[in-house]
Amino acid sequence: MIVTVGSISLDTTRTPFHTAEEVLGGSGSYFTLASSFFTPTSLIGVIGTDFPPSHMKTLEQRMDTRGLEVKEGRTFRFDSSFGYDLGVRTANKTELNVFGDWTPKVPEEYRAADYLYLGNVGPQQQLHVLDQMDGPRLTVADTIEFWIENQRNALAEVISRVDGMLLNDQEVRQLADTTNIIKGARAIMDLGADFVIVKKGEHGAVLLTKHMIFPTCGYPLESIEDPTGAGDAFAGGFMGHIARRGRQDDQTRKEAVIYGNVMGSFVVQKFSVDQLLTLTEAQIEARYRKYKEMVTF
Amino acid sequence: MIVTVGSISLDTTRTPFHTAEEVLGGSGSYFTLASSFFTPTSLIGVIGTDFPPSHMKTLEQRMDTRGLEVKEGRTFRFDSSFGYDLGVRTANKTELNVFGDWTPKVPEEYRAADYLYLGNVGPQQQLHVLDQMDGPRLTVADTIEFWIENQRNALAEVISRVDGMLLNDQEVRQLADTTNIIKGARAIMDLGADFVIVKKGEHGAVLLTKHMIFPTCGYPLESIEDPTGAGDAFAGGFMGHIARRGRQDDQTRKEAVIYGNVMGSFVVQKFSVDQLLTLTEAQIEARYRKYKEMVTF
Repeated sequence: MIVTVGSISLDTTRTPFHTAEEVLGGSGSYFTLASSFFTPTSLIGVIGTDFPPSHMKTLEQRMDTRGLEVKEGRTFRFDSSFGYDLGVRTANKTELNVFGDWTPKVPEEYRAADYLYLGNVGPQQQLHVLDQMDGPRLTVADTIEFWIENQRNALAEVISRVDGMLLNDQEVRQLADTTNIIKGARAIMDLGADFVIVKKGEHGAVLLTKHMIFPTCGYPLESIEDPTGAGDAFAGGFMGHIARRGRQDDQTRKEAVIYGNVMGSFVVQKFSVDQLLTLTEAQIEARYRKYKEMVTF
Repeated sequence: MIVTVGSISLDTTRTPFHTAEEVLGGSGSYFTLASSFFTPTSLIGVIGTDFPPSHMKTLEQRMDTRGLEVKEGRTFRFDSSFGYDLGVRTANKTELNVFGDWTPKVPEEYRAADYLYLGNVGPQQQLHVLDQMDGPRLTVADTIEFWIENQRNALAEVISRVDGMLLNDQEVRQLADTTNIIKGARAIMDLGADFVIVKKGEHGAVLLTKHMIFPTCGYPLESIEDPTGAGDAFAGGFMGHIARRGRQDDQTRKEAVIYGNVMGSFVVQKFSVDQLLTLTEAQIEARYRKYKEMVTF
């Protein structure tokens, strides 16, 4: 079982081609909808009393929701826009609502889980979740620029206590204060992580351990509808594959990075989490094989 | 034998860490110094009477220079600066000098060559070179934004007459008027090229043919001194490997793209063409094997 903590939001996403209003979003939703194809996943998160029953049903069908807390008030909302190249997101409005001062609680029955993914919540909240666990075999954490800027010490403690960090290239540069992502990833390993995965959006991802570099390219796509959630879906594919194999050797980690790329490539082909709702395991395996065939020489 | 046409310049390159003045540069120099590790290469280019004898000696040691024309006047000079991340180049001063109104002439003894690389000269000049050749087995051309903007029709004629186009991602987007490089590359193949290679700088390159996509990542580097010439060295590795194998099947083309990445990765590790002057064939093959081992899963 994978346990994860992350946000659950109602997203309004605007591209020059389409606007989706109050659709299911949040790092926890994307991660879990992706990882649950591989391994049963339990999501720790918070929603308001206004959370639409249809979204609740979507989550219930795919994950253990006993860790979902319903708090009096409004659900976290995020309104953002993409320009024509879908490369740069502009935040229009962020309403944290019930997510703002939430303290995540790990249900008793989750504490013995072997796999823990600390999605994008604050480092203090990540540490709080980590403190409640019995000692997972693999813990991986994500973060965002806001926490790097505002809670660097707590974040350093997170890094010292997890096995792996999953960051995008910009976050690596900011956290390690270097323009070179390889150097940056090594500096983050010096803080205590055994491995770092640098996500580079459409350009793929690089896995670094103390003795290995595994650079990968993104799965080539001819059209993208909504880049939201690609990094979280990547994380879901990565953790999901490792958990289903029950192994953490180099080969399994490499495969997991490719499953990460594959899940990230699916999610951007439709708005919101839509692609993750209709996808099949057979399609995931087919794209993995196609990717492998494409890059082999 | 490979025949190539390209610029030969005296570059002044400024980074926040170092400034190199009037060093050997130009697409023709970088291409030929890279390709000559694989296959004898003949460079068609023009220099002024002020071209330093030391640079001339460098070129003579590595290539057939009977196609080098010396014109009364000053050599092409290019002065540019990079910012801290070495990602964006700002042109400070471009003095075309003898390169400005030059008409490339193909020496009689080059005309039967099997491999032709049309480096960055104007599309009219590329067509003029193509017209003088007997019919190479493989012709590949490069271009830059300036020609896409100002000589689109001539460039379309070049594309219709060559086998392959080698462009960077921004050039593909501009030429095909789309943000998606896969769609863009297909549009360029519709103009007549059999294959397109999209160079993505540190992110590697993608080879597209009508029936195949081969995405590759860049060779990971911990430090870069001067990004100048990476694309031209890539082209040199690509053409050089195909010419030495004498084959153009998918497997050879794929290997050639990797040799392109390898040569591009070497050239940025030192200023100007310096790395290409001390490099050995053994180092090239070692990095190719290391790359292959790194990306294999």
